[in-house]
Amino acid sequence: MADDAGFTPTALSKAKRLADRAAYDEAAVFAVLDCAMMAHIGYVVDGHPIVTPTLFWREGRTLYWHGSAASRMLRAADGARVCLTVSMLDGLVLDRSGFHHSANYRSAMCFGRARLVKDHDAKRAALDAMITRIYPGRVERLRLATKAELKQTAFVEMPIEEASVKVRATGAAAPEPEDAGWNGWRGVIPVETRLGVPQPDADNGDHTTPTLDLAHFAPGARLDEALRWAAGNGGA
Amino acid sequence: MADDAGFTPTALSKAKRLADRAAYDEAAVFAVLDCAMMAHIGYVVDGHPIVTPTLFWREGRTLYWHGSAASRMLRAADGARVCLTVSMLDGLVLDRSGFHHSANYRSAMCFGRARLVKDHDAKRAALDAMITRIYPGRVERLRLATKAELKQTAFVEMPIEEASVKVRATGAAAPEPEDAGWNGWRGVIPVETRLGVPQPDADNGDHTTPTLDLAHFAPGARLDEALRWAAGNGGA
Repeated sequence: MADDAGFTPTALSKAKRLADRAAYDEAAVFAVLDCAMMAHIGYVVDGHPIVTPTLFWREGRTLYWHGSAASRMLRAADGARVCLTVSMLDGLVLDRSGFHHSANYRSAMCFGRARLVKDHDAKRAALDAMITRIYPGRVERLRLATKAELKQTAFVEMPIEEASVKVRATGAAAPEPEDAGWNGWRGVIPVETRLGVPQPDADNGDHTTPTLDLAHFAPGARLDEALRWAAGNGGA
Repeated sequence: MADDAGFTPTALSKAKRLADRAAYDEAAVFAVLDCAMMAHIGYVVDGHPIVTPTLFWREGRTLYWHGSAASRMLRAADGARVCLTVSMLDGLVLDRSGFHHSANYRSAMCFGRARLVKDHDAKRAALDAMITRIYPGRVERLRLATKAELKQTAFVEMPIEEASVKVRATGAAAPEPEDAGWNGWRGVIPVETRLGVPQPDADNGDHTTPTLDLAHFAPGARLDEALRWAAGNGGA
């Protein structure tokens, strides 16, 4: 990997179309990754593409995700090329022709070679890092994972070799002459993902209010902003 | 394809783990697909997995998506095996050990062989179906696509050969004896994706309020419910 703050696009990641929406710099890639906790990871298993939604996180230029040690995808991933894609829908874009309807979104595609984290202590550290990336300060409130639990859990790490970002964050396109006379509403309807009212488990005793390590996920907070805050304070 | 209302799982789609969260019946698969408009589609290009976020829709047991006619993914997809995955994050699940932290979600994985829609009239029909699936009744408000626009647009169709669904929609797991004495908050923080306040384009003239075909996307409406309603009234 280069030690500059960019990912050099090759044929794999270079945008062929709508190149004005694409970027390859580290800050742009990380800005998308750090606003999300779910990624869609593409594997090739027996020649077939398989895409699984998975909780992931970032540490520097390395991505991590986890799953069951029994997962055939995670076992197949060890040493294999994978593509980890993150996307967020930010709005519906309405126009006067079907062709010009669109969506506002942010997405990042990251390519690399995956490897299983096998060392026991490294797995324990990965579990803590996963919790800390979403919930900074929470690990000290939790009991440690048992050996059996760590054995059941697989962690995968992937140094990012190539990455690209695409963002669309504008309104409808400029009106076209042939649209004259058509008056369907033009504009953007924003889409926002937010946290709801916490539902405490019956087993919380008197402790029905979420602890301080969950303050960034207060009702009404934006999920992307809460996760970006947490990435800056716990992860990355 | 079988003509019963189920997808028969083979080694490709059969859940190896957490099998209690998995289903293969048509109603369960469609219920997840119809609540979403973005899918992550996995292709194999030159042996590499590539996952792209894409607007998709369903007609019966066939899935459609679109993109630029210049897209190497779409051209590579013609005749190739693909995996189309949809997922929605519904909540953060908090527990007293890192191991038992989880997420509530709905996801569907669909497998099949893709083919490009090549006929001009079929492409026009696909563009209308895409708009109608999201915005029932809107097509008549829009000017028709030009030949040049249709030429720039590629549509892909994929009859679903296999599909599976996974859903987690419960609270924290049952407390474990070894958790005694640890008192991090246990429960679920819901995650909801909703529509915001419409941002009209300056070119709407007096017509600043969204037209009736957009009523299901009123501010505060849940995106998944609006899309499910639209699927029942325009698409599927």
